[in-house]
This record gives sequence, structure tokens and C-alpha cells, in this order.
Amino acid sequence: MKGERALVARLRNWLAAPSPAASQGFSVPFGDDMATIATGADLLWSVDMLMEGVDFDSSRQGWREIGWKSLAVSLSDCAAMAAQPIAALCAVALSDRLDMQTAETLLAGIRDCGERYSCRLVGGDTNSWRQPTVISLTVAARAEPGCSPVLRSTARCGDRIYVSGPLGGSILGRHLRPTPRVELALALNRLGMARAMIDISDGLSLDLWRICEESACGAVLERDLLETVIHPDARALAQESGRPALEHALGDGEDFELIVMADARHHAALQGHGLLAIGEIVSDGGLWLRAGGERSALPPAGWEHFRAS
Amino acid sequence: MKGERALVARLRNWLAAPSPAASQGFSVPFGDDMATIATGADLLWSVDMLMEGVDFDSSRQGWREIGWKSLAVSLSDCAAMAAQPIAALCAVALSDRLDMQTAETLLAGIRDCGERYSCRLVGGDTNSWRQPTVISLTVAARAEPGCSPVLRSTARCGDRIYVSGPLGGSILGRHLRPTPRVELALALNRLGMARAMIDISDGLSLDLWRICEESACGAVLERDLLETVIHPDARALAQESGRPALEHALGDGEDFELIVMADARHHAALQGHGLLAIGEIVSDGGLWLRAGGERSALPPAGWEHFRAS
Repeated sequence: MKGERALVARLRNWLAAPSPAASQGFSVPFGDDMATIATGADLLWSVDMLMEGVDFDSSRQGWREIGWKSLAVSLSDCAAMAAQPIAALCAVALSDRLDMQTAETLLAGIRDCGERYSCRLVGGDTNSWRQPTVISLTVAARAEPGCSPVLRSTARCGDRIYVSGPLGGSILGRHLRPTPRVELALALNRLGMARAMIDISDGLSLDLWRICEESACGAVLERDLLETVIHPDARALAQESGRPALEHALGDGEDFELIVMADARHHAALQGHGLLAIGEIVSDGGLWLRAGGERSALPPAGWEHFRAS
Repeated sequence: MKGERALVARLRNWLAAPSPAASQGFSVPFGDDMATIATGADLLWSVDMLMEGVDFDSSRQGWREIGWKSLAVSLSDCAAMAAQPIAALCAVALSDRLDMQTAETLLAGIRDCGERYSCRLVGGDTNSWRQPTVISLTVAARAEPGCSPVLRSTARCGDRIYVSGPLGGSILGRHLRPTPRVELALALNRLGMARAMIDISDGLSLDLWRICEESACGAVLERDLLETVIHPDARALAQESGRPALEHALGDGEDFELIVMADARHHAALQGHGLLAIGEIVSDGGLWLRAGGERSALPPAGWEHFRAS
């Protein structure tokens, strides 16, 4: 195993395991979308770091839009846990070629997104340096009363696999203003219909692979069903890239849709919520593609840091 | 007003004011060392960002030491609130010239510091890019049972001003392995002796100025008392810099000692805790230096980002 996955696997062994859930609380395993703050409390938190030239490009995006995106990617982690965002902290190392007006515009974008999702910016750390801008957003959230957060590790053999919208080619523009699926996730969890969940930040197959790793299972994706979740942008991008549109739907990052594992009996209700079925959880580990009765291995593809390591 | 102070002042007006404290909770004003996570909860959190070439220098420091420092500066914020650290999140953008072994060494340093201060690293975000390394640490903490966090905004006219140790010249080496004063802060708060508090990250006079701004008061520092808090490193650095040692004690950053405002009746007890008196809170705004009966204005000096803005 290489790259970021290898690092995270080593960290998992290496950081102390969470202590058992306290009586009034619960425990979230290391490596899920968010972590518990304190044993016995129902608060979750997570952090995301965005870097100029990697996660955003200020020569092509406005700073207000960059601010929106910075918080939105963290709120997508809240959606992935079915947690209601509460508050955020922002730390920024702003390039010294930028002025304070830019810092304020960036923060205005963060505030826009926070207002949309009821998540207030309550503090942070402002810095400047001679390098490209780095933004770090920490978000706290909690499950709704009577609900538990939805984990990555609770998918079961036989569960159907759904996605919350069409995928691929977000780089043509959708990646600039992501829409975290917070309300959808809360609604599904209120109805008890989401068994396991993750958001697609790095790519459908890579993020689904993470669910399989955490839940000690595998996933079979149906070729025919996958056809129905290819975004028009993935088809447009395929024209440019010369790669199949399906490959873009499976491997492109920054869609910020949800992958939802659910019991088959909820199928009609989930369709009513706009979810699109793409396959099934199986006991054999790994990812599989099924087409015309044939099953072939599907290597997880998507964005990873440290790939060269 | 210029620089980071101006930005923070604008943000203060601009971010929504915290809602009134809920019955079982309390409210921390914007601009203190940490922020409340949620109304009604007793959890605090803060974030600090450290950048290669600004806050650390990997050509002169080991990565384990850099890891220690990254968490230690956030724990110093906990000390400043008299809050017991609970857990931390780390986000890192690692220069792609570094390998995963370096990432692990960095995290080992964070873990060392976390173990020393009972603050567990529970999650984070790992990234790589082509620029110098950036590390962001978010820490959650809470006041001990029966205690409230100690704010910046509660200093009163007549309070004595103390520091927890000698100051200045930390750049000669002490800045590499800061010792956040968590236990001291908790002990003082348990005894009800700390009225207002801040840690010295940017410089005695600048951080004391922040207390005065938040508490709508001023501070008179006694020239004779200040002589007793000049660190030997400040004197050594004065030889090199040609500036007075007192200037280093007043303006050098990264000492991570506490400034404690306390009622004069606690003087003996505070001395027993190793605190050093340096002056008094007064009603006139601003900072003042008193020597031989004469009082002169003391402009706040210390490290600020965005100074050129």
C-alpha cells in the first residue's frame, strides 16, 4: 500500500485507540470523517487544509468563492457523519502579496457558507508569509437529538450502495462551489435509513474503498447502474481527456456527494430522496465491477497525497 | 491601528457576537485565547498555524522538536484560559521534498507533547505540496470542575500584574521547545487567584496591551520590577543586537510564559507559585513605564503579522 492510505494506516496503529464509549456518549473509530472531541460528549470535529495551487487557484477563483469552498469541504465531512454543523475555526497563512482586504473577502466567503449551513465562524489564527496561501478550517458538529452519527465502519454484507447525485468532471466548474449534502444526510439519518456513509471528496471508487476497509467488506458496482450516475461534465471531460466518461465518474474528486449504504427495504424511500443505486456490499474484500454477469476487480482510483512516497 | 491588530479589530465587529451564555454554560468573547465550541457546553477550542521559515526552521530543528512545538503553542492557549487540554487535531501540508518518515517523526513530536499534557491527537488531515511545510493544530480543552476559564477581559483597576518567568531572548534556543504553563494556570485558577490571563506568544508588551484592550484599562510597569524579569538570554541577545536587554524582555515573542492579573491580597501566595510582579492595572488606557516616579508611554511591541498592510 502506498501514499496517503499507507500513512493513514500507519497512523491508525500508531495513535492510541479511542477509549470505550462512555455511558452517555459514543466512540468514533480513528479514520472516520470526523473524530469525537471528548469521551462522553456528543460533539464531533474535523479539520481540512486547503492550499493555493492544489485545492484552489486564486488566479481563476475569487477569494469569496475560495472562502465558501474552504468551509464547504469541512461541512461535507459533517454531512458524511449526518452531523449538524455548529461552529468553525479558521487558520490562514496568507501570501504576503495579498492585503487585508483579501483576508476579509476570504472570511466573507467562509461566513456566507457558514450562514447557509448554520455554522458560525467563532475564532481562528491569522498569519502572513512569503509563500502561497494556506487555509485550515476546523468544524464542530453533533448528531441531532435521538440520532447517532453515521460511521464508515458499519456497512453490512447485502446493503445496497447509493450515491446522492451524478459524478465526475467537477473540475469543469462544479468543484468551485461545492454543495455539502448536510440536509439530505440529516433527513436520511432521522429516518434511520443510512447504515454507513462517506462523502466523495477524493473519488467514488477511492472513497467507497475506504468504506469497505473500515467495514471489512467489499463492494460490487453494476456497470449498467453506474451509467446512470455519470455527470454530463464527466462526458464533456471525457471528450477532452480521451478517457472513458465512466472513469471520470469513478475516479474524479471534489464531487462532495454522499455514498450511502442502506438496507434494500428502504429502496423506494431512498429513491424518493433522489438517491441513485449503484451496487451492493459483499463479503469479499475489495472493489468489483459487474457487467453482463462478469465480475472484474476495480482498483480504487482518486486523489491521494504522498502518492510518490 | 495597523497590521494584525487592525484585522482582528475589524473581525471582531464583523463576526456575529457570541450569543448570551446558556444557563449551564458561559460565553467567551471573540478575541480571547480560545473560543467556546457551543453555547451551553463547557468546551473551548483554538487553532494555531505554524509555517516553515516563519515559526520553525527545519534546517536547524528536528521534525520531532517541530512537532512538539506545534502542539505546545496551542497548549499555551489552554494555559492562558486555565483550561485542561483534552484532544487535538493536526492538519499538515508537508513539502513534497519530505517523505512519510518525516510526517511520522513530526507526528511523534506532537504525540510526545500530547502525552506530557494529557492531550490526545485524535485526527487530522494529511496533505503534500511543492511549498514549505505548514502545520495547523486545533486543541479542545475545558475548565476543571467548579472552575470557569480565565479571560482576557476581566482585569480590574488595581490588580497587580505578574509574569510566570523571566522573559526575552527566547530565540537563542528556548523557543525551540516551549513549556506551556498548563499546570500552573490550573493551580492558580483552582485557588481563585487569576482574575485575567494571557500567554506571551508575541511579546510581553503586545500581549499585555491585548489584556488592556479587552479589559478597557491600562497597565503601568515598574522599571525596577521589570529588571527582575529580564532573562539571561535577553541580556546575551542585547550584546549581539545592540538593543537594551529590557527591550528584548518587553518585545521578544515565543516565551510562552503567562501574564497574570490578580488581586494584591494574593501577593504572597502568587510569589509562592514563582510569579514575578511587574506592575499594576490602571484606569488610563494604554501601557506606561514608571521609573523614578516618572511615567512615560510604552508603545506595545512584539510580533505581528500583516504589519506592512
